[in-house]
Amino acid sequence: MEVFPGRPSENTAKIVSHIKDARTDGVKLVIFPEMAVPGYLIGDEWEHEAFLRECEDCGREICAASKDLIVIFGNVGLDWHKRNEDGRVRKYNALFVAEDGRCDGPINGPYNFVIKTLHPNYREFDDSRHFFDLRKLALEQRRPLEDLVSPVKTSAGLLACAVCEDAWDADYSFSPFDTLSKHDARMFINISSSPFTMNKNHKRNRLFSAHAARLRRPLVFANNVGIQNNGKTVFTFDGSSCIYDCHGNQASCGGAFEETYATFDIPLADAARFGEPIDLTEDATTKLYDAIVYGTRKFMAQCGVKRVTVGVSGGIDSAVVASIYRQILEPENLLLVNMPSKFNSSSTRHLAAELASNLGAFYAEIPIQKSVDLTRRQIDQLVVKASGSGFEQKLELSSFMMENVQARDRSARVLASISAAFGGVFTCNANKSEATVGYSTLYGDLAGYFANIADVWKTEIYELARHINENVCNRQVIPQGSMDIVPSAELSETQNVDEGNGDPLVYPYHDCLFKSWVEWWDRATPEEILGWHAEGKLETKLGYKARIRDIFKDDSAFIADLERWWGQYQGMGLAKRIQSPPVLAVKRRAFGFDHRESQMGVRYTRKYNELRNRLLDKHC
Amino acid sequence: MEVFPGRPSENTAKIVSHIKDARTDGVKLVIFPEMAVPGYLIGDEWEHEAFLRECEDCGREICAASKDLIVIFGNVGLDWHKRNEDGRVRKYNALFVAEDGRCDGPINGPYNFVIKTLHPNYREFDDSRHFFDLRKLALEQRRPLEDLVSPVKTSAGLLACAVCEDAWDADYSFSPFDTLSKHDARMFINISSSPFTMNKNHKRNRLFSAHAARLRRPLVFANNVGIQNNGKTVFTFDGSSCIYDCHGNQASCGGAFEETYATFDIPLADAARFGEPIDLTEDATTKLYDAIVYGTRKFMAQCGVKRVTVGVSGGIDSAVVASIYRQILEPENLLLVNMPSKFNSSSTRHLAAELASNLGAFYAEIPIQKSVDLTRRQIDQLVVKASGSGFEQKLELSSFMMENVQARDRSARVLASISAAFGGVFTCNANKSEATVGYSTLYGDLAGYFANIADVWKTEIYELARHINENVCNRQVIPQGSMDIVPSAELSETQNVDEGNGDPLVYPYHDCLFKSWVEWWDRATPEEILGWHAEGKLETKLGYKARIRDIFKDDSAFIADLERWWGQYQGMGLAKRIQSPPVLAVKRRAFGFDHRESQMGVRYTRKYNELRNRLLDKHC
Repeated sequence: MEVFPGRPSENTAKIVSHIKDARTDGVKLVIFPEMAVPGYLIGDEWEHEAFLRECEDCGREICAASKDLIVIFGNVGLDWHKRNEDGRVRKYNALFVAEDGRCDGPINGPYNFVIKTLHPNYREFDDSRHFFDLRKLALEQRRPLEDLVSPVKTSAGLLACAVCEDAWDADYSFSPFDTLSKHDARMFINISSSPFTMNKNHKRNRLFSAHAARLRRPLVFANNVGIQNNGKTVFTFDGSSCIYDCHGNQASCGGAFEETYATFDIPLADAARFGEPIDLTEDATTKLYDAIVYGTRKFMAQCGVKRVTVGVSGGIDSAVVASIYRQILEPENLLLVNMPSKFNSSSTRHLAAELASNLGAFYAEIPIQKSVDLTRRQIDQLVVKASGSGFEQKLELSSFMMENVQARDRSARVLASISAAFGGVFTCNANKSEATVGYSTLYGDLAGYFANIADVWKTEIYELARHINENVCNRQVIPQGSMDIVPSAELSETQNVDEGNGDPLVYPYHDCLFKSWVEWWDRATPEEILGWHAEGKLETKLGYKARIRDIFKDDSAFIADLERWWGQYQGMGLAKRIQSPPVLAVKRRAFGFDHRESQMGVRYTRKYNELRNRLLDKHC
Repeated sequence: MEVFPGRPSENTAKIVSHIKDARTDGVKLVIFPEMAVPGYLIGDEWEHEAFLRECEDCGREICAASKDLIVIFGNVGLDWHKRNEDGRVRKYNALFVAEDGRCDGPINGPYNFVIKTLHPNYREFDDSRHFFDLRKLALEQRRPLEDLVSPVKTSAGLLACAVCEDAWDADYSFSPFDTLSKHDARMFINISSSPFTMNKNHKRNRLFSAHAARLRRPLVFANNVGIQNNGKTVFTFDGSSCIYDCHGNQASCGGAFEETYATFDIPLADAARFGEPIDLTEDATTKLYDAIVYGTRKFMAQCGVKRVTVGVSGGIDSAVVASIYRQILEPENLLLVNMPSKFNSSSTRHLAAELASNLGAFYAEIPIQKSVDLTRRQIDQLVVKASGSGFEQKLELSSFMMENVQARDRSARVLASISAAFGGVFTCNANKSEATVGYSTLYGDLAGYFANIADVWKTEIYELARHINENVCNRQVIPQGSMDIVPSAELSETQNVDEGNGDPLVYPYHDCLFKSWVEWWDRATPEEILGWHAEGKLETKLGYKARIRDIFKDDSAFIADLERWWGQYQGMGLAKRIQSPPVLAVKRRAFGFDHRESQMGVRYTRKYNELRNRLLDKHC
């Protein structure tokens, strides 16, 4: 089901309605995902007791609706007589099993609900901030954890129930499933609220399939769809709920990114075989595109956005963003705006107009030169004075500052105003490569209501563009020219696309490099990068297919580039990310709440400095 | 000591130097705070193995420097052979006791360091995200937790050592200090990295004093100074380290917000009395002001900011911000800019100029009307078209939109450009009342490099202004007129200060209301607020000294106001906070990482709606 975060009554109305349908269809067991009542990524909303009381009331309603069938659902489990370790009311991330109007907990548990044992506290997850886990309860009750983890008795026999992370037990010293397997449960059930990440579904399938085969019991995995966010970062949930037989084969999968109401007969006979081997074929770019369109559509709905303005430069990023919105919106709700200054080539201006025409959207060209000149006149060469002290200083706007003046003029002056007049919002078209190193202007191209491609590397933006033309629209919506020109900000005379002069980033090398800093589980730093470079292993390590020495003439150039971008990543890039719009997370490690960063200036380890100096000395 | 987050080598150099001084002074035991080597609030920097290796090397250096004395310090404890639950290397928040070149752990512990037992996971703390706590270790090792918690043996006898939260045990089912007290330790030591919060030091003193008296042993509390941040939120650390005798009396306190190198003879004889009763007198506004100046100064140093531009409106907020920066900067590094449009009164313009003159700072007046008119000409009445479809639409800029055009013109066009030309940054002058309900313009007055009064309620801004004039400057630096005029954005004809027409917020009522939503530990929602209102208890609950019915003529007006601001708080206010500058945290619950918010639209509980409808029906 689609879970609306922070909306227990709405979610409950849907759950109760589904239960009625299930009863009509003669279903014996109906399963809803983790935190189906309150939502899961809801920030510190867990601190509102009024909200918690409503969740509890909703849970009672669902229990009351469980006449003649078994209902499993996720909700917050409350104990008003106990405290969490922050002094607030005791909350558990809980699974409820309701049957004939009452809820029963595990046969050896102290509550009438199942408590999540393993709490994820990485990436976007903050379970231990909000919930008391079963391990803490075992310590508090001075009982062995193994005693508390037990199945729930129902009219359909013992059910081994667990919540999300409880199944992802590889790095924990305790496995809830293993302990549950000591009881003779008829099947295993895992309810989850598990966000989409590129390639995660494969991993999920392999994990649950292996569990089912090892436990020799059918296993049901129930996940929600929808979007939930942590302010800075917006996550999609792809559902893809499914059932595994006791051989690890898969049956009755729900679709990705869609609510699925499906009923299935689960043969409970020993060794019953009813699934198919897992299908691992899928196209990564298709998945990525679908997740972005889904997340964008849902985020717009949540914010009540109906009309969208996209600043289009003629380049690839804004073209991809505009095309994504065109898939969501009718053309009369989409406005594309090109904002040329004296530095913009006629080629990019024509590409922008061509894109708008291909999409059938509104198009306007609002020149910024006059405003930029006015700003220059008001500030450049201005003499500021301090009355009394006699201090005075003549101010100068350098050409670099004038680049930022242009970028801010486009977004904070033109786009912010025209999108309001059009009756909507404007987009942020930043990609992940730019976001990583802050290759953008604050209050300029980094502004916007939502950054829906900011978790996608530049190299992948091209793949999305080809996918849009070839598979989504079946025609050249994004002009070939936008794919062919050199990426350029066109903010000064030196960034002339017609002369092939563009941004200082070299793709795909820099994408590979930045990925190692941001997306790898064991994140690389200059110390590792330079070590691999010195050993001649860097291409292999980064998965870079060409030769790095074709980019940099010597170690000195390599190091200068490495330090330039590492400095940007830890310095201005981070300062800009703090003020950036919410990012749609689609990859492992999106900026924002998924990748928590502190401003601490640019840092290198001593080992890095030693190696660096050795290489440079050798070079001299 | 001041700990620099993410800078293990720098911190270690300082520690080693202090150890040398201590040895020279014949000191037997020297104590450094929690995470003195790596820093504490460093985000996901904990994932960099290169950084961890450097921390470990630094720890070895400190151990090696411990000849002839005992050194206690905080560092990350590593076990490269084990995994954290996120699959990364095993990390502990650890206390090291070094003596004569080696580190010894607790007498019954498995490592040569003391592991933090209780992990805070509220407010800005994310301990469980990064570290494995002693409770998990006890489960993993299948040993009772009580066994693992034990003192460290040194040449000075048994020392009962614990880390920060271990002492804040009231809401935990386990008390490390109680368990440690079963051994005959000579004294108790708590190393902390405990951020400043208004009034927290009193609480801290009462807590440690009570511990010492109960445990009947001297107790040392060692805390760091400096600033650390989590991106969105910047925390100051006030140090205030001190020693308590076994009667709970206090001796040898380090200063607040300053590095203190102090030596003290701790009498270890039974029941030795060497402290004084705790002094609880302090002025809240002085503390608040000191914390803001300290945090601002340190943040500037960390970011390398040497020159600052403040947009000054003639109002109180920008006057307070400018005065704070003037305390940090020489006048030639401070530029005040007033940016009048046709709506700005001559009264506020004169107040802005008077402030600049009082501060001796640079002053410039940059009118924005021309640019605002240009934007209006380019966009208002513009007809946008869609080629092909024949769609067209005439755009209109409403007067509300024109208010935002002005605010953005000031910040994103003028201040961003002039501050760059001046060689520095510009400030965000938003206060907490405005930040709560988003009474500000994105890319307008909400822009800036740092929001140093965004955790201070409007009511308290006036107290800061009085404090600056009366106690800091001893003259009227902030003009009386800025304190007397009605707060107003001056963005339209209706917001005319000379006619006494200003912002729609009513102080101090709205501050009291917003505080109950944001700062209370058990946060209030409209359900509680309306319930108290209906019972006539709201003034008492909110601590509002006047009568609420003098503000709102009836329930209907009360409810309309409540819903207006609650809607803003959960809606646009939050959307704006996501893109706001870093906030300096000084109160309990600063926006950002301390108060984690998800965008979920405006929500009311069913109970609220029932009560609301009952009150409105009665009214009709």
